This record gives sequence, structure tokens and C-alpha cells, in this order.
Amino acid sequence: MKELLQEIIDKNRKYTKEGNVATYIPELKKANRDDLGLCIIDVNNNIYEVGDCEKKFTIQSVSKPITLALALMDNGKDRVFSKVGMEPSGDPFNSIMKLEITKPSIPYNPMINAGAIVITSMIKGKNNDEKFERMLNFFRKLSGNKNLDINYDVYMSEKRTGDRNRAMAYLLKSEGILQGDVEMVLDLYFKQCSIEVTVKDLAKIGLNLALHGIDITTGERLIDEDISRIIKTFMVTCGMYDASGQFAINVGIPSKSGVGGGIMGTVPNKMGIGVFGPSLDKKGNSIAGVKVMEDLSIKFDLSIF
Amino acid sequence: MKELLQEIIDKNRKYTKEGNVATYIPELKKANRDDLGLCIIDVNNNIYEVGDCEKKFTIQSVSKPITLALALMDNGKDRVFSKVGMEPSGDPFNSIMKLEITKPSIPYNPMINAGAIVITSMIKGKNNDEKFERMLNFFRKLSGNKNLDINYDVYMSEKRTGDRNRAMAYLLKSEGILQGDVEMVLDLYFKQCSIEVTVKDLAKIGLNLALHGIDITTGERLIDEDISRIIKTFMVTCGMYDASGQFAINVGIPSKSGVGGGIMGTVPNKMGIGVFGPSLDKKGNSIAGVKVMEDLSIKFDLSIF
Amino acid sequence: MKELLQEIIDKNRKYTKEGNVATYIPELKKANRDDLGLCIIDVNNNIYEVGDCEKKFTIQSVSKPITLALALMDNGKDRVFSKVGMEPSGDPFNSIMKLEITKPSIPYNPMINAGAIVITSMIKGKNNDEKFERMLNFFRKLSGNKNLDINYDVYMSEKRTGDRNRAMAYLLKSEGILQGDVEMVLDLYFKQCSIEVTVKDLAKIGLNLALHGIDITTGERLIDEDISRIIKTFMVTCGMYDASGQFAINVGIPSKSGVGGGIMGTVPNKMGIGVFGPSLDKKGNSIAGVKVMEDLSIKFDLSIF
Amino acid sequence: MKELLQEIIDKNRKYTKEGNVATYIPELKKANRDDLGLCIIDVNNNIYEVGDCEKKFTIQSVSKPITLALALMDNGKDRVFSKVGMEPSGDPFNSIMKLEITKPSIPYNPMINAGAIVITSMIKGKNNDEKFERMLNFFRKLSGNKNLDINYDVYMSEKRTGDRNRAMAYLLKSEGILQGDVEMVLDLYFKQCSIEVTVKDLAKIGLNLALHGIDITTGERLIDEDISRIIKTFMVTCGMYDASGQFAINVGIPSKSGVGGGIMGTVPNKMGIGVFGPSLDKKGNSIAGVKVMEDLSIKFDLSIF
Repeated sequence: MKELLQEIIDKNRKYTKEGNVATYIPELKKANRDDLGLCIIDVNNNIYEVGDCEKKFTIQSVSKPITLALALMDNGKDRVFSKVGMEPSGDPFNSIMKLEITKPSIPYNPMINAGAIVITSMIKGKNNDEKFERMLNFFRKLSGNKNLDINYDVYMSEKRTGDRNRAMAYLLKSEGILQGDVEMVLDLYFKQCSIEVTVKDLAKIGLNLALHGIDITTGERLIDEDISRIIKTFMVTCGMYDASGQFAINVGIPSKSGVGGGIMGTVPNKMGIGVFGPSLDKKGNSIAGVKVMEDLSIKFDLSIF
Repeated sequence: MKELLQEIIDKNRKYTKEGNVATYIPELKKANRDDLGLCIIDVNNNIYEVGDCEKKFTIQSVSKPITLALALMDNGKDRVFSKVGMEPSGDPFNSIMKLEITKPSIPYNPMINAGAIVITSMIKGKNNDEKFERMLNFFRKLSGNKNLDINYDVYMSEKRTGDRNRAMAYLLKSEGILQGDVEMVLDLYFKQCSIEVTVKDLAKIGLNLALHGIDITTGERLIDEDISRIIKTFMVTCGMYDASGQFAINVGIPSKSGVGGGIMGTVPNKMGIGVFGPSLDKKGNSIAGVKVMEDLSIKFDLSIF
Repeated sequence: MKELLQEIIDKNRKYTKEGNVATYIPELKKANRDDLGLCIIDVNNNIYEVGDCEKKFTIQSVSKPITLALALMDNGKDRVFSKVGMEPSGDPFNSIMKLEITKPSIPYNPMINAGAIVITSMIKGKNNDEKFERMLNFFRKLSGNKNLDINYDVYMSEKRTGDRNRAMAYLLKSEGILQGDVEMVLDLYFKQCSIEVTVKDLAKIGLNLALHGIDITTGERLIDEDISRIIKTFMVTCGMYDASGQFAINVGIPSKSGVGGGIMGTVPNKMGIGVFGPSLDKKGNSIAGVKVMEDLSIKFDLSIF
Repeated sequence: MKELLQEIIDKNRKYTKEGNVATYIPELKKANRDDLGLCIIDVNNNIYEVGDCEKKFTIQSVSKPITLALALMDNGKDRVFSKVGMEPSGDPFNSIMKLEITKPSIPYNPMINAGAIVITSMIKGKNNDEKFERMLNFFRKLSGNKNLDINYDVYMSEKRTGDRNRAMAYLLKSEGILQGDVEMVLDLYFKQCSIEVTVKDLAKIGLNLALHGIDITTGERLIDEDISRIIKTFMVTCGMYDASGQFAINVGIPSKSGVGGGIMGTVPNKMGIGVFGPSLDKKGNSIAGVKVMEDLSIKFDLSIF
């Protein structure tokens, strides 16, 4: 098994040359474009790690489905989906246009930035510190990694340069969709995006979703079953930015990518997958990471379709 | 089993009052708003029919994934997907806007009208008659119904009033996406939409997809396995117009709807489903039909997620 | 005077090198990119012609304000402006998008193609031949040129390749804005665009507008005074495609351009101007022609602002 | 003369019932919907005031052309128009969409909010206080009213609720169009909009533009002649929000409106006009004020076209 995975990494590493690391958050430019790592944890808790699996990277948009799960448990489906829709948008993740031309102007789904910011604003807590503590604890429990924490430099970098997210948040505020103080919500959102993980952390969270919310080690239910299904559905329809449709056809594994280079995959009843490759394609997905997912899907027949 | 299905029909018939039959094709106004029918065929070829299952209706957009399968077998994936994309559009099925603001201006996917017209134009044949004959034969084989034919009144009605489809087709022509004579392509497309079916026909085609392209009676392969997977993926990401995301979450069965009131569902390795209810919701889906699908999914645990 | 004009032509001819002749109508590619001609007729009927003033070219969009005048006299303001708006659109002349996102979906103004096609459809006549005869006679009277006629090759070329205009017309038809047979309306529109003129013809028509509708030779009123004012206003707000705002600031002369390379200007109570230069800038205006207009405005203080 | 103007006010006051005072800035809701006032100052310095001419109101968007004049004198045309365009946008004044779909994403013109905010950011001064002092002094000089000042309640109300303007400003910042601290720029912009004026103040500033920048009392040049022309051109093409085209046709007087209910008009070489009527139509223009302008234009033949 491990050799097979190593082969997949070796074969696809060349694609890292065809993409570029994210530049719109200055701190992300420091990533090493050649890195490529993979971790798979199966339902027997076998852990396979190959490539640059020890590297830490910020979770970025991979955090969106996880925070969504917490927000759904905090608020219930009705309340959450009165503020954010369920439809793929067909637009880039940072698009603002649809907020203007569709009424009511709620974000299309929780995987685009506008929707994710609204979701973050719904995390319970009596202040921002408590909200972040609850969020971080949830990430720690799911990953089984008590040391999970934010990368302070990336967080500060996002905070300094996140003007497009600010634009979206203020627009949502002016439309009555976003409650509370915009800068506070964004601060929480930037922290969420700056949580530092490894491919093993992502694989472990993916495994939890593959087991419909049950922790493999403790047997504890961490996510409600129906919420775990909702999360996986969003990962299929909107998980890979505006390349989700193509990814569903070519790979067919519920997955979520982030501009830090991470991809989290979940194969129902089979395995969780974590991939890291900071060299991105034009849509913001790990360019070699997508190839790795494609090979995994074909080699092990993992498509849900 | 049949009683269970009858209950589901009885329980949901009231929702037909909350929608309306399609009016944009004048001939469709003649449908009976109260109708609701259901057919399920399982992998043991058990056939269950309840409600208004004997009623004929035009297939409309439910034809899109089927014609796509034929076009893919005629032309190969590379050629087809150079002309039509794979992404959900986030816009109504008859939207033109994205053809203008995205470059290259290929339709987002084969399930919106613009994409479906391009797909229809790719069906092989030395003239329109042969193309339609090949198409109709394909539908007949998949449904196992040799009597399948077009409803001439609906076809003529669409032809007379299909100016928005004409607008799209001429725009695609001017962008070099659509080849051939526009009126000829549209004539074929209007015929395709006017094929008359029953819920049993749809359930049979759905079953073929559930069996990855194999005909249950003859054992013959009618659709390539990888193409059958592509079709099912599109049914999940774009099958229910711009309510596909919500349907994926609430139902999770690869499905395609049409404004004639039909819904075709396919549950991998389990069953094919045909529903008919001409009373539509605002997005163009059978309003009671969607409820029936939701109940089926919950009752028999059919979600793929 | 003539020397001054000759200087202006000589000085600006170099700009023809920086643009290109229109290519989207194949027949227009045959134009000579270097050509530049100018004619001014003042209110004392002095005629000044310099440069390539003997060259014939098709009138294209310069016909829009003229046909609008006829449609307004045929139908009255209320009827015309119930079908076409009065606002600059901010979009390219062949844009379709606003027809989709604004309701009611009437074209923004009569100077973009969508609006101009609706205007053409409102010309009175018992059949297309009579409509075109009335239109052509109107153009002949205004230009004082009885030999004005269409360029048959350009007309056929437009008819063959005008699919984007077809798309717009069918969309307008499907929205109930455009009445009558689309192909008949377009045939009339393509003929209108294919009328062949010289700079003198344009200057003469511009002079009529400068005199508020009165023919300088016969003293006959050819355009109602208030309609002549409406025409000039549209020439300022929408006459130079989506460069109208910049042209109003830099030149300030009510003008209309066409992709055939013509520009018609009208300086109230002073003069009519005709310019020809088929090398176009990116927005579709004669690249050297705009420079000539700018120099005329500054040299003779012609801005209305 | 005064009787004529009084008649126009009396005749049009009924239209105030058909509109509503602005509500999006809470403080503006306090305006009296029935108010209607008019002041005209001609080039002989005759001042005519009728109706509710003593009422004070905040200048709002009427400030945009005035600040543009100062910014042009501070920075020169090249620099200003590298950051803001010259074209009517065809969209509502607070639209964000075009900033996303057009590249480079500079605002279409200085009369929509996005453009006006960029213009405000270009006012010179070593800090915000000095910038506002320079701005206020410019408004005072032009109006000849040394007591001109901001309405503090409206300013604070705008600051509290201006989230849509914030959204635009952060988007412009993220695109590199807007320099400096967003909150500082907005603070200056909100102050600018909150300057309190009477119809006489607006008429006086309109007269300055009618005299091409010369103060009628002192003979001092306050605005460069070519800049005064640019300002008037923008007032025609973009001065009345997305009703500018219609206003140009029906009225033809270079004018600028604001949601406080003010309209400033300028008739070259003839007069300055100030109108106040806080009841607005759907596009944000004073509903009775527009009617007053129309009557003035017809009665005194003031259209520039």
C-alpha cells in the first residue's frame, strides 16, 4: 500500500512546476512550491504517510466545512440556511457579483468566502475569544491533535491584507445578512483560516466524516449524522471552488481544498485523505494534489458515483 | 412495498396545489395540475407503479443526460468537453448572461439549455432525420419501449415559441461554439424535448444508469461505464436546475427533472425511479415530485452521501 | 479654412496605424486602413472637403440616430420610449447581459444594437420593401443625395454573419419587446446598416440636425424640432459606444460613429461634420477620426459644454 | 419672473406626494416630504427665491462634481482619470458589480459612489482635518457662504450606517485603486456629504460653473475653465444617477442631484439653479425637483441641446 502511494506522489510531483504558490496573502508566498505530501487513514485506523507529510501548512478554506458542521450544531439547519444558500454559484470563491444581482442577497453556499464568513459569525460564544476557543477545540477533537494552533504570522498577514473579505463582509452587513461587528467576525474568520495542520490532521478529520461523525479512536460522536451528510454533499457540489463539477466527474471523492495547498478527502465507510501541495492551479486548488486525488480515485475505485 | 409507495403518493399529492404547470410552452398548459405518479424498478426487475402512472408526458430536460450519453459515445469526452463545461452555473436554466461575461464563452454544463443545445448538435447522422432516428432509437432501447415517439403538438408548440432558445443558439453560433445550421439544430432539440414517456420509461432508463450502463433484460451494454458515471455526476451537480445543491442535500439521489413534470432518479446498484407531477415550483421542478423523492430517500435510505 | 482642415487631416493620419479595420463583418475587412477624410458644411452652406473625401463607405451605426428620428415621427415619443430606454448602458454596443438582469428587459437606449433593432422594427410600411423605401428616401432627403443606396456585398455579408444580432433579436422577441418576424426585421436592419455614404453625405445630415431639422437648401422641415433635440442628446450620451463619456469631455460635439469608419457630428447653429477613417480603436470608433474631431473642437471651440 | 417661478413651484408641489424621503441614512428620514424650494441666480446677479428656500439640507451627492473640481486642480487630469473613468455606468449609484466584471476595475465615473470615494481620497492635505478644511473652504468660496458647515447628526448617521460604501471602499482598496486608510477616506467622504446648504448656495455654485469658473462678485477664478467644462459634461452624462439620459432629453440642463433632495443646475452663460425637494423618486432624484427643472427648461428654453 505505502509503495503504491509513494509511486503516486513521485509520479505527480512534476505537476508542482506548473502551478504557483498563493500570493494574495503575502505570508503564503513563503511556501515551498515543490512540496507534495499525502496521508490516508482507513477505517481500520491504518495510517499511511508519504512525501512531505511532516510539513505544516495553514488550513485556509479546508476549514469551511468543519466550521459549518459546528455552526449547524450550534444553530440548527433552519437558522443556518436562512442566512446562506445551498447552491453552487458558478463563480470564483471571492466573487461579490451575485450578492448584488440576486435577491435576497444571501451567499449562494457556505464554501465561498461570503458564505463562510456568515457561517463563522454564527459560532456561539460570549465573546470572540470564547468563540475561537470553541472552534479550535472542535478542530482539535476532530483531528485528535491537541496541539493544533494558529500560525500567527499568517493570521496577521491575512488581517492586514484581507480587504476583499472586508468588502464582502460589509456588503453582507449592509444587506442585513451578517450580524455583529464586522471586524470582530473577520478576526475570527482569519484565525480560523490560519489554523496550522498536517496531512495527517486532514486525513483524520476526513475519516471522521467517512464514519458519519464517529471518532475512530474514542467511538464518540463528534458530528451529527445528518450534518455529516450535509457536509459531504457540499464538499461534492462546492468543495473545489469553481472546479468542483470537473473534480466530481474526474475524481468523485467528497473533498475540500484551500489556498494553503491542502485538500481533505472523505470516502464514505472507507477512508480519510489529506493532501498537501502548495503549488496551485488558476482556480486555487493544489495542482499536483488534484492529480494525486485523481490517481487515488482510479487506483482504488473511490468515486461515489 | 407498493402500499408504502402508494402512501408516499397520497401524502404528497396535496403539494401539487402549491405549484403550477409550465406555461412558457403553450401546449404544456394543458397538463392536469393534480397528477402525481411514481414507478420504481429495482435491480431484480421488480416493477412498482402507483398513482397516475399511465399518464404520458413530454420528457423535456430529462432528455438532457440521455442525449449527453449518446453524444459522449459519438464524439468522445475530449471533444464534447471542449464545447461544454462541467461546472454548475448557479443561474437559471435559460440564462444567457454567463455566455457573455465568461471567456471562452462555452456553456457551463450540459444540463442548462445552452449546453444541451450544443450537445444535441453533436449527435452523429448524415442529416437531421438520421440524427433524430439514432436519438429516438437510443431512448427506445434504454427504456425498452419500442413505441416511444414525439408528441407532435408539443414539438410544434416549442418550435413556434422557442425564441429564447433561438437567442442562445445564435449567440453560441456567433461565438463559434455551435456548428451547423441553427434552425436545424433547434429542430432536433425541440424533437428531443417532445419525446413522450411514462414514469415506467424513466424508471427503466434510471435503472440502466444504476447498473452502470447494462440493460437488465438483455444484459447488453447500452452506455459505457465511465460515461454512465459522468452522467450520474452531472445529475447530482446540475440535475435539478438551480435547486440542485438543495436537492443533493435533502435527497441525495442523482436525478434529472424536466418542465413536463418528470423526474428520473438513479440509485447506484439499487433502482431506477420515475416520477411525474406537472405542477412545478418556481425553479421548474415538479413540486410534489421533489417531495416524493425526499420521502423515498429517507424511507429507503437512498442518499449517496 | 481648407488649409487648416488639411493640416488636421495630415497631422492625424498617422493614428490610422494604431487601429484596425472592422473584421466581424467579413466584407468590411476590404477597407483601406490608411484612409482619412473630412467634410464640413457650415450654416452658410460652404462645403469644405479634405483627405479621402470621395471614398464611399457603409453607414453602419451612424444610421441609428437617423432611423430613430424617422421612428419617432412615425410612432410618437411615448410609443417609442415604451420599447427602448433613454439611458447610457455602460456596456459594449453588442452586449446582451442587461437584457437579462434588468426588468423590464427593454434595451437601455436606441444607440446600442438591441435598441436600434427595436427602433428599425417600428418603421412604418405595409411590407419590408415599403419600409426600406421610406427609410432610404429619408436618408436621401436628409443628405440631399438622390443616389444613396445600399452596398449589396456588405448587406449580404452582414446577413450571413449577423448571428449575434439574431441572438439579441430573438431574445427581445421572447421578452415581448420586439414585434413581427425576426428575420424580416433583421433584413431591414442589415439593409439600413449597409447604406453607402461619403463624408459629404454625413456632413449634410449633421447640418440638418445643427439647423434643428430644417434643410438648408430647400428650407423644408425634415425632422421635428423636438425630435432633432432628442437625437442630438442621444448622440452626446450614447453616440460613441462605451467611449461616449470620454468623447463628450474631450470633444463635446454631438456625434455618432459606425464600424464602417464614419463619424457624423453636428454643432448646433454652426455646422455639420462628416469624418471617415476605417481604422478603428478597441471600442469600435474611428481611431484617427476621433483625433480629428478633438482637433476640430479645440481649434474652432465647438464643444457644447 | 418671481411670479413665474412661484407658479412653477405651486404647480409641482403635488408631486412630492408621489415620492418618499431617503431612508437608508436614518437621519434623512426626518426631512419634511412636502418641502419644495427654488433659487435662481442669473449672470446679472439677480437672485430669485421661491418656496421653501430658507430650508437647510445636506448636500449629499451634489458635492460630487464640486469635490471633483478640487481633486482635478489638486492632481491634474491625467492622475485623476487613471483612477476613475469617464463613462456613464448604466447602473444604480451604489452598484458594485462593474468593479468585478470590468478590468481594470476602476469606477466608471466620479458621480457614482465608488468613483466619488476615490475622488475624495485624492484631495490634498497633510491629514484628514486639513483635507476637510480645504474642501469646506472650497465649498464656502464657491457658494459665497462663509457659514457653510456640516450637519453633525447626519454625518454621524452616515458614518454609523455606511456599510455599503465601506464595502465599495474596501473592494477598491483590495484592487489597488484606493490609497490610504479606508476609514479615514470614508470619514472625509461622509463629512463632504453632510455639508448643509440652501437652494441659494447651490444656485451660486451653479452660477460659477455657468460662468466657466469665475466668481460673479469678486471676478476671481475659482475653477479652471477646462475643469469647469469637464464638470458640466459629467453633470449631463452622469449627474442624475441612472436617470441621466432621460433628464438630458427632457431637461437638457447640466445638473447634479443628491438624496438629501437637492438639485444643482447650471445653464452656461445664463444662470445657476438650486432646487430642494426631499421627496425622492425610485432612482434617488427629487421627484418634484425634476419636474421643476423640466418646467424651467421649457419655459425659458434652457436646454443645451
